[in-house]
Amino acid sequence: MTTVRDASFELFRKHRMTTIFGNPGSTELPMLGPFPEDFRYVLGLQEAVAVGMADGFAQASGNVTHVNLHTAPGVGNGVGAIFNARANKAPLLVTAGQQVRSLITMQANLTNRDAVEVPKPYVKYSHEPPRAADVPFALAQAIHHASLPPTGPAFVSIPMDDWQKEIEPVDYVTQIARNVGGKAQPDPAQISALAARLRGAARPVLVAGPEIDAAGGWDAAVELAESQRLPVWASPPTGGGRIGFPETHPAFQGVLPPAVGPLAQALDGYDLVLVVGSSVFPYYPNIPGDFLPSGAELVAITSDGDEAARAPMGDAIVADVALTLRALADELSEPASDREQPPARVELEPFPPGELPSGGEVHAVLAELFPQDGIVVLESPSSTAALRSRLRIARPGSYYFSAGGGLGFGLAAALGVQLAEPERQVVCVLGEGSAQYAITAFWTAAAYSIPVKFLVLRNHEYSILKWFGALESITGAPGLDLPKLDVAATAQSYGVPGSSVAGLDELHSALGDAFASDGPRLVQVDVAPGMALA
Amino acid sequence: MTTVRDASFELFRKHRMTTIFGNPGSTELPMLGPFPEDFRYVLGLQEAVAVGMADGFAQASGNVTHVNLHTAPGVGNGVGAIFNARANKAPLLVTAGQQVRSLITMQANLTNRDAVEVPKPYVKYSHEPPRAADVPFALAQAIHHASLPPTGPAFVSIPMDDWQKEIEPVDYVTQIARNVGGKAQPDPAQISALAARLRGAARPVLVAGPEIDAAGGWDAAVELAESQRLPVWASPPTGGGRIGFPETHPAFQGVLPPAVGPLAQALDGYDLVLVVGSSVFPYYPNIPGDFLPSGAELVAITSDGDEAARAPMGDAIVADVALTLRALADELSEPASDREQPPARVELEPFPPGELPSGGEVHAVLAELFPQDGIVVLESPSSTAALRSRLRIARPGSYYFSAGGGLGFGLAAALGVQLAEPERQVVCVLGEGSAQYAITAFWTAAAYSIPVKFLVLRNHEYSILKWFGALESITGAPGLDLPKLDVAATAQSYGVPGSSVAGLDELHSALGDAFASDGPRLVQVDVAPGMALA
Repeated sequence: MTTVRDASFELFRKHRMTTIFGNPGSTELPMLGPFPEDFRYVLGLQEAVAVGMADGFAQASGNVTHVNLHTAPGVGNGVGAIFNARANKAPLLVTAGQQVRSLITMQANLTNRDAVEVPKPYVKYSHEPPRAADVPFALAQAIHHASLPPTGPAFVSIPMDDWQKEIEPVDYVTQIARNVGGKAQPDPAQISALAARLRGAARPVLVAGPEIDAAGGWDAAVELAESQRLPVWASPPTGGGRIGFPETHPAFQGVLPPAVGPLAQALDGYDLVLVVGSSVFPYYPNIPGDFLPSGAELVAITSDGDEAARAPMGDAIVADVALTLRALADELSEPASDREQPPARVELEPFPPGELPSGGEVHAVLAELFPQDGIVVLESPSSTAALRSRLRIARPGSYYFSAGGGLGFGLAAALGVQLAEPERQVVCVLGEGSAQYAITAFWTAAAYSIPVKFLVLRNHEYSILKWFGALESITGAPGLDLPKLDVAATAQSYGVPGSSVAGLDELHSALGDAFASDGPRLVQVDVAPGMALA
Repeated sequence: MTTVRDASFELFRKHRMTTIFGNPGSTELPMLGPFPEDFRYVLGLQEAVAVGMADGFAQASGNVTHVNLHTAPGVGNGVGAIFNARANKAPLLVTAGQQVRSLITMQANLTNRDAVEVPKPYVKYSHEPPRAADVPFALAQAIHHASLPPTGPAFVSIPMDDWQKEIEPVDYVTQIARNVGGKAQPDPAQISALAARLRGAARPVLVAGPEIDAAGGWDAAVELAESQRLPVWASPPTGGGRIGFPETHPAFQGVLPPAVGPLAQALDGYDLVLVVGSSVFPYYPNIPGDFLPSGAELVAITSDGDEAARAPMGDAIVADVALTLRALADELSEPASDREQPPARVELEPFPPGELPSGGEVHAVLAELFPQDGIVVLESPSSTAALRSRLRIARPGSYYFSAGGGLGFGLAAALGVQLAEPERQVVCVLGEGSAQYAITAFWTAAAYSIPVKFLVLRNHEYSILKWFGALESITGAPGLDLPKLDVAATAQSYGVPGSSVAGLDELHSALGDAFASDGPRLVQVDVAPGMALA
């Protein structure tokens, strides 16, 4: 005698989905209790936190990850984070409770009216099964959709009285048994043609995007760059949720600027731009111009048909990014190119003196102390560029950033990444403003002893908005100052030991202590207002 | 030479919408700066807070209220609060920024793809104008939709480069000039028929719902109840976002239970149930039974056609609740009924002794100190019933609760209510768990000196979920304990002076001090675990 619940948990086991993130409500209790001993539940105090944690866990583990939300208002609180997960291509199973079936038509309290509609633009699949017996099948479909390329979130709404219903083997046995894979090797003819284009190019360049990391393509990317002597740029930081190439490599040139005009300028002089694992391009802000320098061609490789279709220029190959890089590297391994080696990356200017440290100076300290196997989760909009300049990531799976630009990802996702990577040190870099969007995650860090080290740069403002306003000649906008926020005190109130430091020496010492300690720790440092671009 | 921006702010002025709540991003800056001097901007640090504040302000002011959100991820963070606003029938104009038009088709960073889809199930109108020139017209339509019965939120997505565009008078002059009203007086024939049914009933009863308060119908409700000697129940607390009848009135019997079976039981003995300004009914949890006691009939009066259509039993009149009550009271004023006067409300039992105070004991202290003109905003799920038993609201516009059940409303809405009612004292009653969903609102309270007094009942658990689990025989669900939350410390970290007290004497003293002080204050008190039902 098998219930919907038994079959569903068996399905989760089959897919190694034994960690469930969530924030529970009454409509979820029939799923949650009694909780199987081989499962782990991680509680977030608000849904944006639960989804953000699951996003980080899914990306770092590479496994479909389950986040369970309360009916309509709970899903509603999580929609921003589901948007982020879609942009991050995080394979999530998002489930939500729903009223009992007999009370839905009258829209009793807590009915999720049109449950599938709200998340639909941001998920690959959105379904409420018409019968209890279909729940395991719908969950299986959602898991397959989440894991098929391009990976992303999928949603199932489940009436709360379904879980205890008995079901027949026909409703779950073959569904649970299925394995569905969709990594695509590109057509060999496409590879040969692209290899010929690369061989024939005078000044080709590689733009490395986040999907290289997600697909496990670092080695092939390095091999390709070396044999073809390609200079390598990172795709613009805006959409760069992960890093696809070692930023300490001699071929590495830097991070492309994100606006149309400046990006084309940065590519000036190249004749073939090979973009791997990025949209073309995550432009921001609006600085118009030509899309490419004159005479340049572009080819993009992505597993995402939508990215391929919506690019305004260039050709595209839709296939697995790692398999494509591997095929291309093999095809081009001999003879190695006799092009000139790429130039060295431009040296950074020394820091100008200032009363308060800049974001760049802070990140230089971080870089000095950063653990060998460290992972950074970044959400400090005014110092993104500075961090990328200073902390040069040299290993795969070591950088996570919200590709969609939604704040709240960083603080929450850092916990999920740390849970997925317990042997590595996660460092979460936040602005004091961005920390607010998922602030209760500090409670989860303390309650579950998740040893993330938090570095908070405090500049008492939404710096990036002031910078943007200046760029657009907008003055006098309200709401851009953030006086008196004290993330160290707030974290402390949730049980995360925090300290607030002044100056680089104190920062060095406090950050060193944090790295040496067990458990979560937070260091907040006051930095100069304005953007830290290097 | 008029821009979209000029015309839009003129439209806002026309509708007295000079307070804007929001959390800004780059896509909103062209709207916000330079901010007109006759407008006020209230910053929330997360979108759920901005929308919740606007919801409270809209309900307390009765005026359409503008909340401005960031593109996709910002709207996403606010969807739970927009769900609440719909359930609360709060007239909101929700606007969101969008990428510049030239970057939307390629889905550049921060593009709100399918912008109108996500909020659609919870708003009355969802639109992205196809041309910049249509923005003021779309905003006008949204404002009219929000204010037409049933009031509720409406959404407009606005490409950021639209604001500076010049427009012609044809695009805004007549649109701004329009006044649109939709309060409906019911058909006199319907009133006569209903009056006859009431006169002919042996034991009629009035169920007073939240829309009586929103419509300004207290006086007519009291007059009707008195002339017809109607016993009066409050509609179930679940959907009771406001209170529609003085709970100190001799005719007042108490609050109806929210589940199907118990609700019908509470109505046993009545032959005509007149439900005014409530859905029929906001049932929760699922305790099945007949919808009405045998022999009883039901008539509902609501301005909401959807509420009228989806009720499983009874007749309904769709019209303005206050106008209908007035017409009915006038029709029935003479002769007054010679029915027996309603019985007195059942006395409350004395509190059983306990180590920690119960929620009921806490609310008895609150009732003792509650200011004459006080307003309570309630989000303490385990003590909702106790508060309704102890704190008997006797004036209109003095009680706000999330009718949809979404947490995060209370803390945020309290600030909006206080801003709309600066002369009255707002008291926000929270559980330490529910406070977390909009916790950053404490910063706004401090930064804007909004003098709400917060009372936090701490029981170290999601009590209502444990209660619900016991009701449904569900054991062993994870995530129901909340160890070590300290809302007083967190509020303090945001600049709201907070104290944590033990026992009723300390509570009395601390709460008295809070009421005597200027500015926001918080008192946290430890209470016994479990539900406080009286």
